[in-house]
Amino acid sequence: MSGAVWNGAGRRIHMQEVGTRDGLQIEAQFVATADKIALVDALSATGLSKIEVSAFVSPQAIPQLRDAEIVLREIQRRPGVVYSALVPNARGAERAVDAQVDEMNLVMSASESHNLANLRMTREQSFAALSAVNTIARTAGKSVNVSLSCVFGCPIEGEVPVPTVMDWCARFVDELGAGGVTLCDTTGMAYPGQVASITAAFRQRWPDTELTLHFHNTRGMGLANVLAAIDAGAERFDASLGGLGGCPYAPGASGNVCSEEIVHALQLMGFDTGIDLAALIAAAARLPALIGHEIPSQIVKAGRRLDLHPPPPDFEAIRQRALAR
Amino acid sequence: MSGAVWNGAGRRIHMQEVGTRDGLQIEAQFVATADKIALVDALSATGLSKIEVSAFVSPQAIPQLRDAEIVLREIQRRPGVVYSALVPNARGAERAVDAQVDEMNLVMSASESHNLANLRMTREQSFAALSAVNTIARTAGKSVNVSLSCVFGCPIEGEVPVPTVMDWCARFVDELGAGGVTLCDTTGMAYPGQVASITAAFRQRWPDTELTLHFHNTRGMGLANVLAAIDAGAERFDASLGGLGGCPYAPGASGNVCSEEIVHALQLMGFDTGIDLAALIAAAARLPALIGHEIPSQIVKAGRRLDLHPPPPDFEAIRQRALAR
Repeated sequence: MSGAVWNGAGRRIHMQEVGTRDGLQIEAQFVATADKIALVDALSATGLSKIEVSAFVSPQAIPQLRDAEIVLREIQRRPGVVYSALVPNARGAERAVDAQVDEMNLVMSASESHNLANLRMTREQSFAALSAVNTIARTAGKSVNVSLSCVFGCPIEGEVPVPTVMDWCARFVDELGAGGVTLCDTTGMAYPGQVASITAAFRQRWPDTELTLHFHNTRGMGLANVLAAIDAGAERFDASLGGLGGCPYAPGASGNVCSEEIVHALQLMGFDTGIDLAALIAAAARLPALIGHEIPSQIVKAGRRLDLHPPPPDFEAIRQRALAR
Repeated sequence: MSGAVWNGAGRRIHMQEVGTRDGLQIEAQFVATADKIALVDALSATGLSKIEVSAFVSPQAIPQLRDAEIVLREIQRRPGVVYSALVPNARGAERAVDAQVDEMNLVMSASESHNLANLRMTREQSFAALSAVNTIARTAGKSVNVSLSCVFGCPIEGEVPVPTVMDWCARFVDELGAGGVTLCDTTGMAYPGQVASITAAFRQRWPDTELTLHFHNTRGMGLANVLAAIDAGAERFDASLGGLGGCPYAPGASGNVCSEEIVHALQLMGFDTGIDLAALIAAAARLPALIGHEIPSQIVKAGRRLDLHPPPPDFEAIRQRALAR
């Protein structure tokens, strides 16, 4: 038995919430601004390391997040929590600076086809836009994280060669000087062996860069991928409260890994997530009222492992009858 | 990086189907006998090592499986596949012998409260019933497997002490001479660290007993538990086609781990499951028509990892516009 990863032994794992951006952006129902603020404030109190609060995108493109400025202004910022936002271009970067984000999250895809389909630019054009954002962020003293989509596969192209992934990471870290990189499994194509090897390769080449892994549970491998990444040296994970966030290529399938499911599992295994799990579950339990439908979260549905159930009402009678036999 | 488990390296893992029993028994809709026979025949062709075809229980108690005799008689048995059935008592054992099952699967719980609530007997009474079945099976030359419920926790009592689990296993293996034992995570309370340690303890004490692990995905830890068990020496797993089977204590939550999800993941990791995954998925895709509702299977919803999607219809126009910039 190799065994190391099954026993967390108090190792620190940082959890980063993306539900308020990645999750809410695809909801049909607009979540009221006051509710978003209250949700972020509740999340701030749970022990999360980072919260991707919103996105500074066109309000026409993503009306669900049109209130990014107000939300960023009105939330109560808790020391130690990094408040980030997705920023696609220079215009968004200026808005993000004005809104005093701690960190800008920049996105492009490792796959040319996915980048074109999703961002309507070539990868080189995306990199140029991202460089412009990077310049604005640095001038304003903001941290920069680059999220690379389709690291573990592209739903249009299939396999994405590892050297392609590493080359783009090099441009983010070595050329732009990004402080953090997120390797994203955008449509749930990652599997544990692959995750372990790509994570180890990144860690070996850039030991000092803040590395985040972003998994989707589209094919049921989310937690296994988290564990494979931890085993290979990762310590930061994106996850989405309630399991919000879907996969446009697979209607009905799971999207982002669920924050409270991952924290529940990691805590049982002895990792130190720094999270108040009860508070996190309470925040997730508020979601159905905000978005108008049930959430995928297995933990909200089933409770924690030791949330016990009463015996059946006739239990004592059953027992007496059994003992009388 | 410990690493061993992330690379299957061709190691053989045996998959055992329980959907036709554990799954169908809780469906509201009775699946027509001819459809059950066709389903088992389809499953027989996929490379599964064992199929729990039905249960020889009271037709009043579980009317969904009242056609056990006919199904067992009419299926086409494929050499190499073990056809088993759940058998709760001597009456069921006589029926199972007549129906020519290969193996009888006997069930009791490691938790007194769960055994009483579920089987309406004390554990000692269940063991006595199980011993009677064992005698009939041996006389008829049938294999015996004992499935022990609540090995990883009881929804009423909470933690189940590992020595309690080991003591019951000793009675099955050393006292009854059962050829196989299944450690069941009946309500999804198992977590990877616990799974690794209990699996290793069993394997060390009974290296020659056929050991099966039976997980539920109730709290999203199903695949991770499978991998932890493999890492600790397990090589046989129960799973349910389409993810059929629920958890009576958590309405809406996932039940049994999904056969095609587990096989999909294990194959990507390089394990040899012996399964024709396309045929298994095709069998799962037939389920909604049989049971009248959608199935949890993420693989049926999302497809396999490299089941690619066409680019958007206006992709070429997007590309030309991007290149013209």
